[in-house]
Amino acid sequence: MSDALRTAPPQTPIGRIPVQDVRPVVDHGARPAKAVAGEEFEVSATVFREGHDAVNATLVLTDPEGGEHHLPMTCTNPGLDHWVTRVTADRTGWWSYRVEGWSDPYGTWEHDATIKVHADVDTELMLEEGARVLERALDEVDRTADEEQVLVDAIRVLRDPSRPPVVRLKAGTDAAVEDELGARPLRDMVSPSPEYHLLVERERALYGAWYEIFPRSEGAHYDEDEHRWQTGTLRTAAQRLPAIADMGFDVVYLTPIHPIGQAAKKGPNNTLDARPEDPGSPYAIGSPDGGHDAIHPDLGDFDDFDAFVAEAERLGMEVAMDLALQCSPDHPWVAAHPEWFTTRADGTIAYAENPPKKYQDIYPVNFDNDPAGIYAEVRRVVQVWIDHGVKIFRVDNPHTKPVEFWQWLIDDVAKDHPDVIWLAEAFTKPAMMHTLGKVGFQQSYTYYAWRNTAEEIEEYLTELSGEAAAYMRPSFWPTTHDILTPYMQFGGPGAWKLRAVLAATLVPTYGIYAGYELMEHVARPGAEEQIDNEKYEFKDRRWADYEPGGPKEGRSLAGWLTRLNTIRREHPALHRLRNIRFHVVDDENFIAYSKRRVLPDGSSDVVLVVANLDPHSTRATTMRLDLVALGFEPGDSIEAHDLVTDQRWVWQRDVYVRLGPETEPCHIVSLRRPW
Amino acid sequence: MSDALRTAPPQTPIGRIPVQDVRPVVDHGARPAKAVAGEEFEVSATVFREGHDAVNATLVLTDPEGGEHHLPMTCTNPGLDHWVTRVTADRTGWWSYRVEGWSDPYGTWEHDATIKVHADVDTELMLEEGARVLERALDEVDRTADEEQVLVDAIRVLRDPSRPPVVRLKAGTDAAVEDELGARPLRDMVSPSPEYHLLVERERALYGAWYEIFPRSEGAHYDEDEHRWQTGTLRTAAQRLPAIADMGFDVVYLTPIHPIGQAAKKGPNNTLDARPEDPGSPYAIGSPDGGHDAIHPDLGDFDDFDAFVAEAERLGMEVAMDLALQCSPDHPWVAAHPEWFTTRADGTIAYAENPPKKYQDIYPVNFDNDPAGIYAEVRRVVQVWIDHGVKIFRVDNPHTKPVEFWQWLIDDVAKDHPDVIWLAEAFTKPAMMHTLGKVGFQQSYTYYAWRNTAEEIEEYLTELSGEAAAYMRPSFWPTTHDILTPYMQFGGPGAWKLRAVLAATLVPTYGIYAGYELMEHVARPGAEEQIDNEKYEFKDRRWADYEPGGPKEGRSLAGWLTRLNTIRREHPALHRLRNIRFHVVDDENFIAYSKRRVLPDGSSDVVLVVANLDPHSTRATTMRLDLVALGFEPGDSIEAHDLVTDQRWVWQRDVYVRLGPETEPCHIVSLRRPW
Repeated sequence: MSDALRTAPPQTPIGRIPVQDVRPVVDHGARPAKAVAGEEFEVSATVFREGHDAVNATLVLTDPEGGEHHLPMTCTNPGLDHWVTRVTADRTGWWSYRVEGWSDPYGTWEHDATIKVHADVDTELMLEEGARVLERALDEVDRTADEEQVLVDAIRVLRDPSRPPVVRLKAGTDAAVEDELGARPLRDMVSPSPEYHLLVERERALYGAWYEIFPRSEGAHYDEDEHRWQTGTLRTAAQRLPAIADMGFDVVYLTPIHPIGQAAKKGPNNTLDARPEDPGSPYAIGSPDGGHDAIHPDLGDFDDFDAFVAEAERLGMEVAMDLALQCSPDHPWVAAHPEWFTTRADGTIAYAENPPKKYQDIYPVNFDNDPAGIYAEVRRVVQVWIDHGVKIFRVDNPHTKPVEFWQWLIDDVAKDHPDVIWLAEAFTKPAMMHTLGKVGFQQSYTYYAWRNTAEEIEEYLTELSGEAAAYMRPSFWPTTHDILTPYMQFGGPGAWKLRAVLAATLVPTYGIYAGYELMEHVARPGAEEQIDNEKYEFKDRRWADYEPGGPKEGRSLAGWLTRLNTIRREHPALHRLRNIRFHVVDDENFIAYSKRRVLPDGSSDVVLVVANLDPHSTRATTMRLDLVALGFEPGDSIEAHDLVTDQRWVWQRDVYVRLGPETEPCHIVSLRRPW
Repeated sequence: MSDALRTAPPQTPIGRIPVQDVRPVVDHGARPAKAVAGEEFEVSATVFREGHDAVNATLVLTDPEGGEHHLPMTCTNPGLDHWVTRVTADRTGWWSYRVEGWSDPYGTWEHDATIKVHADVDTELMLEEGARVLERALDEVDRTADEEQVLVDAIRVLRDPSRPPVVRLKAGTDAAVEDELGARPLRDMVSPSPEYHLLVERERALYGAWYEIFPRSEGAHYDEDEHRWQTGTLRTAAQRLPAIADMGFDVVYLTPIHPIGQAAKKGPNNTLDARPEDPGSPYAIGSPDGGHDAIHPDLGDFDDFDAFVAEAERLGMEVAMDLALQCSPDHPWVAAHPEWFTTRADGTIAYAENPPKKYQDIYPVNFDNDPAGIYAEVRRVVQVWIDHGVKIFRVDNPHTKPVEFWQWLIDDVAKDHPDVIWLAEAFTKPAMMHTLGKVGFQQSYTYYAWRNTAEEIEEYLTELSGEAAAYMRPSFWPTTHDILTPYMQFGGPGAWKLRAVLAATLVPTYGIYAGYELMEHVARPGAEEQIDNEKYEFKDRRWADYEPGGPKEGRSLAGWLTRLNTIRREHPALHRLRNIRFHVVDDENFIAYSKRRVLPDGSSDVVLVVANLDPHSTRATTMRLDLVALGFEPGDSIEAHDLVTDQRWVWQRDVYVRLGPETEPCHIVSLRRPW
């Protein structure tokens, strides 16, 4: 390599019309930008030229079949030569895009002629030159007969000495000619940027409501007579699916369903002295009953699994599978492939450690020892589940495995199954989290659970909905089986309602861990996770108690979640990430944001959320709406329809709101012109 | 191209240890980063890995002969996985660099063993594993016998069961072992970033003091008897060179010296009715006497030019030539190559216009009509001047010619003359200005003349000294023959002193237009340029009048400029751009900044400038020094030596300063520890 550097390297041509700083571009173009089918996003570039002649730019979008679509770009900041357009790829597949800068002879002429003819400078010459530009536009660009006629008429008048010069000029510059040249321009010196890849995925990669269950808990109950737990099964868990579907969820996510190791099995609350009847952590995968390609015998068999998937599908839901690539000491891989693990200096296999802590129930896979073998085996395991109808994988701790492994796996699966979606549970530093998105993960868990103030939320959403949205899609979870923040522990019911609303409306994909309805807010002392963590024991939540007529009727948030999911389904603006805008509020305890989406029929869906983030106090503030961002004109009156309470108001720019424990923590309002 | 996109494009491997976001990278790596020989700059990258094992990074710098230099990188922000190192390329040529991420087995062991041995967990195992890591370091990395001995000793103690475990651990982790492994690390899974080009140019590309003259004015005088001007010549202009050299300038820049067209010649103050005796604008190039490859007969011939260059060289100065690629209607190219210009619909050649304004004395070259012919002719012209000793070209209005032309020209010249420097006079929008730097211009005029407030200056310098410094080098001119801002018109002597100081110390290259010494501040009404612009007439500045004993002794800033240039030469910190740091001042009328440079002998040169930007009022403020940025410790006392007044003070962090018309507008101080 270094030999080639001894002399000047070959120049990369700057192009006749320079096109610089195209965005989005991921990793200098090494990786694709991403979108879902029908998702609008902005492409921008810096396009400029020498001298005074007019410059212009086109976004050329190439579809998976190779068809090219020309989208005009607009200069939104002439001082910075900043050009933008909005792009929507309407179907999945590998697309690409480039920006073409070009010299605009019609624009040059129109600018100069308008000044000079009105100043009567070179009038005849300018009019003749206009006619010649339009002649070129006729000769060099394909048009229908009607389209041609617009230019033919203009040329005739431009050259008609019997008319006043301003009339002739007007013929060459009127809206019909401008529109025709805008749609089918005469382009000189066309200069393309590099071609950038765009991976368009199915909409579920961006938008969906998830619900997490431990299948063994659904239908589990404590048998008072036998003084032991009866496990739930895939069959009993399937009986819970209608309720989940009724709440409006799109994806049901199962924690691991594989055989659980008996060696070093953990007891309740992560204790080391498990009793034989304790079920163990489903994340300690593998036993003589099998590994990642097997089902825990207590849960059922593949027929039961198929029935579960079929029932979910019948209810309009997809099943997401947990992929936790770690092994209990009993995992079949350990005996068959000890070389897939790390052998220490004393000949033992290394268990997981975070010195000085040890996790004796887990053997991490060492991918470097036999990459080809491990890659192939994981690929085989994944295919087992794909063959049983799974198209979504929630990956446990992907940041403890080589990034290049995920890049390979996701790419290899996509070759035959491009509709498979991968969610990264990478609760780690930003570089890893972002890079996993860049190499293929469709979705990522996020820091949402720890972003509580308005300033934190706005800053985080600005990051997520900005350039990062081209490669990383956030999933917001107010709690998980491992996360119960102080805000949730101590915020009371208002906090639980609010954090669900924020998750469900700030981003298109959010997730709820079973039991959220019941506001299970008691933490294990010293930890930010639930006491009696479901990872280590059965939970019988007695759902029936909360149903109408039950002893705990009215004490569940199921209705609130149902309302939220209904609002999400009815409002396509909430299916998008990059369209979020924040509005000014006087009280820093409040947050206000909106999403707007223009629909194919030209109408707009506009949803605004304003919330009091202090779960303990009812507060009032004035909110100042950014009317232009909402799609209205300054001074417009707006009809605001509260989608929770069904109240309706007419709002102007400044809106007084009062929210908190006395009423509701937030308004979710649909906005439109009142006429 | 589009065919290849129908299926997934080949993946660009992320690498076993991901290396992301290497900086500097210009245009996604399409163009080189730039530096001058001996110029230190920072390279940074995001480097991280999966899991808990230690990650590390190396900057590999490849010199023009292909030799690789390994520079250790430091993680300055673990949360963001941000790694940096400082790079200095010691000679000109095409270099390259890449960042290598790697797994650090010694770092992993040292971290884990330190925790576990102190907790007495797996003690013997950890010590044995340490010995094995060091054995690998011995086996796999070249070392001298002495270097090996450090590791051999450590291994022996690690395995010596007669010693206490903490002593054995210490043997494997002490500073000698750490230093040896730091200098010659054991690197696993080495993962390189792409290779990026680095063009290292001679120091004059970054650092130099320029002085601009119209050669015909130097030695010109009005003959009272004959009632006409006698022109200066290259011979009389050469007589001015010792005075310019005495002021300490490094480059003397000549406005065009070519024959001037007679057609549509401009008279004084850009009037259209020139008299025969008016000299015309030297920017209206070309007459029957010749074009860009000729010398105006009034100025002399090539022998005179050679003598001028030789005299400059004798005085330690270089000559910068103006390259203004435009033609008067009399230029030989017009008759020989009418196709190199734009022919209008009426058959005439187009002159320059900015509708409705016309510039009948100038025909712009149309590069698109015959690129090959025009490129070759310009290349030939440039070679004429290179052959006569010119190695610096100041390019007039490069932004009115195709950017790709400059890319080609600069690259082609550099093939045989890599020491040629090009200065872009692109007073235009940022995109063009920056891109001209990216495609090859070594220097650029800037917006300095219009940046007057402290906030404006700090913002602009932050931009110029940041990422832009990798491809664009600023030249600061307080005035030019075309620029006389209101600040200079109305600021009085303090403004003239101050703006020279700022130009000379904010950036390494600055320029002075002849007459600055005399504070020629009267503008043509309605214009921001001097009245009686030297472009259109002779100027006899009667330099002798300002010399000792002359009638205007003491009324010139020549001494001030001499002092400034002396300070610049004596202080290598001022020869650099990227080392500027700003300090907090209480009064927004003040600005304070410093430059620090560590010299090869390990000593530091530190210069601080604090200035009152209000030329009309003496003001006082408190300045808070950023002692760490200056290379001191918090709480240090500092010796401050005023390089203008020769005063000395001892400063602490907070410094009271009082500056303005009553004293001087600024302090330029050298800082060092007082012991």
